[in-house]
Amino acid sequence: MLETTIAAIRPLDEPAMAAARELHGRLTKPAGSLGALEELSVRLAGLAGHCPPPLPAPAAVAIFAGDHGVHAQGVSPWPQEVTAQMIGNFLAGGAVVNAFARQAGAAVTVVDVGVATPVSAAPGDGTAPLDPASPRLVNATVRPGTRDLTVTAALTRDEARAAVETGIRVADDLVAAGAGILLTGDMGIGNTTPAAALIAAFTGADAAAATGRGTGVDDPTYARKVDVVRAALERHRPDPADPLGVLAAVGGLEHAALAGLILGAAARRVPVLLDGVIAVSAALAAAAFAPDAVGAMVAGHRSAEPGATLALRRLGLDPLIDLGLRLGEGTGALLALPVVSGAVRVLHEVATFDSAGVAEK
Amino acid sequence: MLETTIAAIRPLDEPAMAAARELHGRLTKPAGSLGALEELSVRLAGLAGHCPPPLPAPAAVAIFAGDHGVHAQGVSPWPQEVTAQMIGNFLAGGAVVNAFARQAGAAVTVVDVGVATPVSAAPGDGTAPLDPASPRLVNATVRPGTRDLTVTAALTRDEARAAVETGIRVADDLVAAGAGILLTGDMGIGNTTPAAALIAAFTGADAAAATGRGTGVDDPTYARKVDVVRAALERHRPDPADPLGVLAAVGGLEHAALAGLILGAAARRVPVLLDGVIAVSAALAAAAFAPDAVGAMVAGHRSAEPGATLALRRLGLDPLIDLGLRLGEGTGALLALPVVSGAVRVLHEVATFDSAGVAEK
Repeated sequence: MLETTIAAIRPLDEPAMAAARELHGRLTKPAGSLGALEELSVRLAGLAGHCPPPLPAPAAVAIFAGDHGVHAQGVSPWPQEVTAQMIGNFLAGGAVVNAFARQAGAAVTVVDVGVATPVSAAPGDGTAPLDPASPRLVNATVRPGTRDLTVTAALTRDEARAAVETGIRVADDLVAAGAGILLTGDMGIGNTTPAAALIAAFTGADAAAATGRGTGVDDPTYARKVDVVRAALERHRPDPADPLGVLAAVGGLEHAALAGLILGAAARRVPVLLDGVIAVSAALAAAAFAPDAVGAMVAGHRSAEPGATLALRRLGLDPLIDLGLRLGEGTGALLALPVVSGAVRVLHEVATFDSAGVAEK
Repeated sequence: MLETTIAAIRPLDEPAMAAARELHGRLTKPAGSLGALEELSVRLAGLAGHCPPPLPAPAAVAIFAGDHGVHAQGVSPWPQEVTAQMIGNFLAGGAVVNAFARQAGAAVTVVDVGVATPVSAAPGDGTAPLDPASPRLVNATVRPGTRDLTVTAALTRDEARAAVETGIRVADDLVAAGAGILLTGDMGIGNTTPAAALIAAFTGADAAAATGRGTGVDDPTYARKVDVVRAALERHRPDPADPLGVLAAVGGLEHAALAGLILGAAARRVPVLLDGVIAVSAALAAAAFAPDAVGAMVAGHRSAEPGATLALRRLGLDPLIDLGLRLGEGTGALLALPVVSGAVRVLHEVATFDSAGVAEK
């Protein structure tokens, strides 16, 4: 499944991009005056293979949740149980991601790919994948949290593959249900530590440069976190040309599943709007599997985590929002969704100079 | 009317801001993890005088349109008739501002404060101020375009005051109709030239630093534009402590009206979301009339025009969106509206650690 998905990923369609550029020149606005939105709409035309590309709707956020053996090393001040508790909050509609998703009209799917403590799904959880009013839970546990990456590989290659293929299946499911854009979300206490290790592994950055303060850890915890990332890289020496090996050695189940979601979206030529540092660490893995997958990626925002900027630079993506967010869950992607919609809407709805009877310069 | 409006503008309410900060600390997210959205929501609580502040809805964009005598100096490659033609496009729903307003559910009001050529209002123009489906036109011409500011003052003080008071009346009208947030829009071929002059006058910046390429002028036109701005400043020597005098000498009718809209919003404690360089040049005038008016301002985006950054810095405002837009019309403000709504929505809808049964660190 992973291999067939990778094989289906193709470059952006040049004639569709040229058509979008040509159309932009005829719309009632000065050429180039929509800045980054113009190039974004051109890329989305290239992804769709026609101009204008479809409006990116309905939108579906997939929140992949997992726990982390490295939590035992004291890299986060939060108890591991918070991962499962926050899933309850997502399903009850009480988290920030829910507030933003309701506002944007996006449906929320929580995918348990490896939560270590019991998840109690609220009665009445949604089952329709694209119902914005009703978050739903998908049980797809690969294993109850990763192993401690300072001691051993976080996952076996088979486990990493299972998580990636779970992400591909979720993308398939959401696109089959009609989703016009997928948004990445994540939940996992401790998950900025494997994200930093992934970013260091794929970009070659130093552990200290790739590691941030996550939820806001204090100085001693931060120092410990950098040491943990450095030790993991030294122990496993992950090969960036072997993304499955990197994900297995120093990744997380939600990171691997997000890489799969991105690959699945790219294979189906549906845009995938990336959230923060967890998403972009997974995007590096997806790009290592299939470089053309970058064509389907839209960077929603620049997380406050320093590793996010390293990853975005490597991917060649400029984020749409840059407001110092570091929450995850998909919140930064949801804030950026109206910008993506607006960029595409221009190609659908704006009059040309000719049709509107407006003189050109 | 101007004086009573200025007298009604008061500082942000500290207890409401403290209540918003305290509430943020109890919501199910790491402290500070929403970055700039947290401080924005705190400021809006201070503006409303209670926590949570009301959701910023319904939204109303007011596009003030005017022409400019300085157009005769060749500062823009576009014919002056395009101002009136674009009003027709706004009323027909064909401009980018319309596409973004439909997406955001915002109503569009076009206010003719001084268009030089005939405006033909389409039959069926909306008359309800808050109907997103139906743009409406308000005829409030002070004079058919400004005078050429390189030759004489653009406006008399009485004309400048009439334009400012038109903006105050539009704010009153929209707030009375129920608007929860006002967005600034503008249309006027040549209007980045007076905007640059206003920014130079209020910030003390050099003409070259405050002047940009507007719709994208070529090098000779840009050089002429800088010369025009410099000549206007030397001729009129506007006093930044006399905002009405500055607006009269080197401003535009839409700039003056926008200053009034901002003052009106601030007096009624309704947030005003600023668009690009025309808006922030008007905001400098509003702040000169009433420094506490800044409390009602939210910077929607950073225009590509260099003067916008100078003005935002002087106002102490960080923009929400920074994507190289330079279109005006209100488009940058509309793109930022969901960010403002999201910031407030968090205070209304997100569960506390206690209510959601989520452990704290």
